[in-house]
Amino acid sequence: MKKYNIGILGATGIVGLEYLKIFDLVDFPINNIYFYASAKSVGATINFRGKDYGVIEATLDNIKDIDILFSSAGEAISKELVPTLAKRGIVSIDNTNAFRMDEGVPLVVPEVNAEALRGHNNIIANPNCSTAQLVVALKPLHDAFRIKRVIVSTYQSVSGAGKDAVEDLTNQSKHYFDPAHNVPNRYLPYDIAFNLIPQIDSFADGDYTKEELKMVNETTKIMGEKIPLTATCVRVPVYRCHSESVNIEFGKPVSAQQAKEVLFKAPGVKVVDDAAQKLYPMPRGSENSGDTFVGRIRVDNTVPHGLNMWVVSDNIWKGAAYNSIQIAQEMIKMGLI
Amino acid sequence: MKKYNIGILGATGIVGLEYLKIFDLVDFPINNIYFYASAKSVGATINFRGKDYGVIEATLDNIKDIDILFSSAGEAISKELVPTLAKRGIVSIDNTNAFRMDEGVPLVVPEVNAEALRGHNNIIANPNCSTAQLVVALKPLHDAFRIKRVIVSTYQSVSGAGKDAVEDLTNQSKHYFDPAHNVPNRYLPYDIAFNLIPQIDSFADGDYTKEELKMVNETTKIMGEKIPLTATCVRVPVYRCHSESVNIEFGKPVSAQQAKEVLFKAPGVKVVDDAAQKLYPMPRGSENSGDTFVGRIRVDNTVPHGLNMWVVSDNIWKGAAYNSIQIAQEMIKMGLI
Repeated sequence: MKKYNIGILGATGIVGLEYLKIFDLVDFPINNIYFYASAKSVGATINFRGKDYGVIEATLDNIKDIDILFSSAGEAISKELVPTLAKRGIVSIDNTNAFRMDEGVPLVVPEVNAEALRGHNNIIANPNCSTAQLVVALKPLHDAFRIKRVIVSTYQSVSGAGKDAVEDLTNQSKHYFDPAHNVPNRYLPYDIAFNLIPQIDSFADGDYTKEELKMVNETTKIMGEKIPLTATCVRVPVYRCHSESVNIEFGKPVSAQQAKEVLFKAPGVKVVDDAAQKLYPMPRGSENSGDTFVGRIRVDNTVPHGLNMWVVSDNIWKGAAYNSIQIAQEMIKMGLI
Repeated sequence: MKKYNIGILGATGIVGLEYLKIFDLVDFPINNIYFYASAKSVGATINFRGKDYGVIEATLDNIKDIDILFSSAGEAISKELVPTLAKRGIVSIDNTNAFRMDEGVPLVVPEVNAEALRGHNNIIANPNCSTAQLVVALKPLHDAFRIKRVIVSTYQSVSGAGKDAVEDLTNQSKHYFDPAHNVPNRYLPYDIAFNLIPQIDSFADGDYTKEELKMVNETTKIMGEKIPLTATCVRVPVYRCHSESVNIEFGKPVSAQQAKEVLFKAPGVKVVDDAAQKLYPMPRGSENSGDTFVGRIRVDNTVPHGLNMWVVSDNIWKGAAYNSIQIAQEMIKMGLI
């Protein structure tokens, strides 16, 4: 079996380090691996499969001799590097907002639209974390019952905002109990410890945040057709895994049991739903899995064919590193790399 | 001005202690005051307006010489005591689920349905916390634009589950950072620190929780007409104030600006909504207020006349103690006590 030369861009970030765990779990066929980050991380070493690697500064000159770049260093650096690398024949699986809505760039969740990979031009976009887990749950339901409208309220963990936001939660929580604990400059717009911030990313059209608009636009692109969707995105004091309260109106009749049966058979979905046993997905306990957990499935009688459900997944895995590696595996299987 | 003899039932609980702060703020006309709780709290003293009061065991024999009982000791004790006290002429403003849906018991949020108080038979029910703040925001919008359907996802603080749940959050959070910190028996069904629990109260019809069904049934009773509503209720690691992501379909056209103008003039509502300034309500900062804070008001274009908004209020104040005292004030004003 062919082995690939791999680059990790943003190697020292939350997502960067997570690729390594997953490469081992899925036995990804790696020949050489290179770790790229900004100049300030040069000097750091990263251990992978028993060997130490020095971090290389992420420049167009330095990123070479690789087949696939897993790119998670932020939108600006992706825009600077990825298009040129694509011209040089390097396939980038990009985990930023840089190219997601670009024509000619497939936006892929393999369980939903792997076929879109055939149209790639050496750049594949990984969706926003809150969208990825949502479409994994929506697609099988749409195929079975035709979705007419989706209303989603999110409960998003701080790791979705990066290392600094994780430190905000830790420092502010410790400070809450011990005011002597020092709280450095805040990264999130307000304190997140024991609080909720109903703003993720900046504000845009119609007073929606960009995060909310991404869910609308990315869902339509991945599903391949217009899915009327409205979202409210909220940051919660949770470290890992995003949760979503999802209300769906369907074109066809649906019972809770039918929905469960469809989701039970769906790729990438795990149904966790037993009221008698108090079983439902929660962020703690859903970490380090590429699955999307769905529970609290119940009929909403305020519309002819309505359903409520609760969707939880690891935002760093299915929302980022795991989905990107799935994309690479799928491309290998399809003979595209 | 007449002064009243007041009893507090559940005097040592979260809600019980909060009445005292509010009595002073609203200058409630108190003659004598008595504090009732279970036998295990007898011996404790409570200071009010500079005087120490001993806690009295809550029995039918002991609860006497009062005009108004503010009752917050739980459903079982309310069912045991309140109906007999009503026959003896004591007006109970009951903050439990014991009588809320009973015919002949007004369920009142004064900004919405104070007139219902006229039908009282010495028992008035205070609504569930998540319902109270919701109807304060819904009523003016319904009057202006006719609500057709409401979809709500809640983000409810641990204080809604009482003192033990508050201690759960504290102990589990401290334990998270310092495993040597002892965590006693858990009160909530799962760990709440850095987690979300999509279950509040026990499960009932259609796999909805009782909390979710309360929102449906109480909203209809308070609004005085059937409001199609579906709810998903989630416990979040926040100490105080409940938050709600609310999607509404109206019968009449509505713009975000029109909705803001209506809410700006509505009693008990404070609009906090300025995207450019990153202003929106959050639980931290909304404590110790009887107001319902509304922000993130924006048009939902997936239906003809849709709106999303974010509603935050202090569950111990508007959801309990403050609303109960407002009810008493209203009854005094209406000559009902």
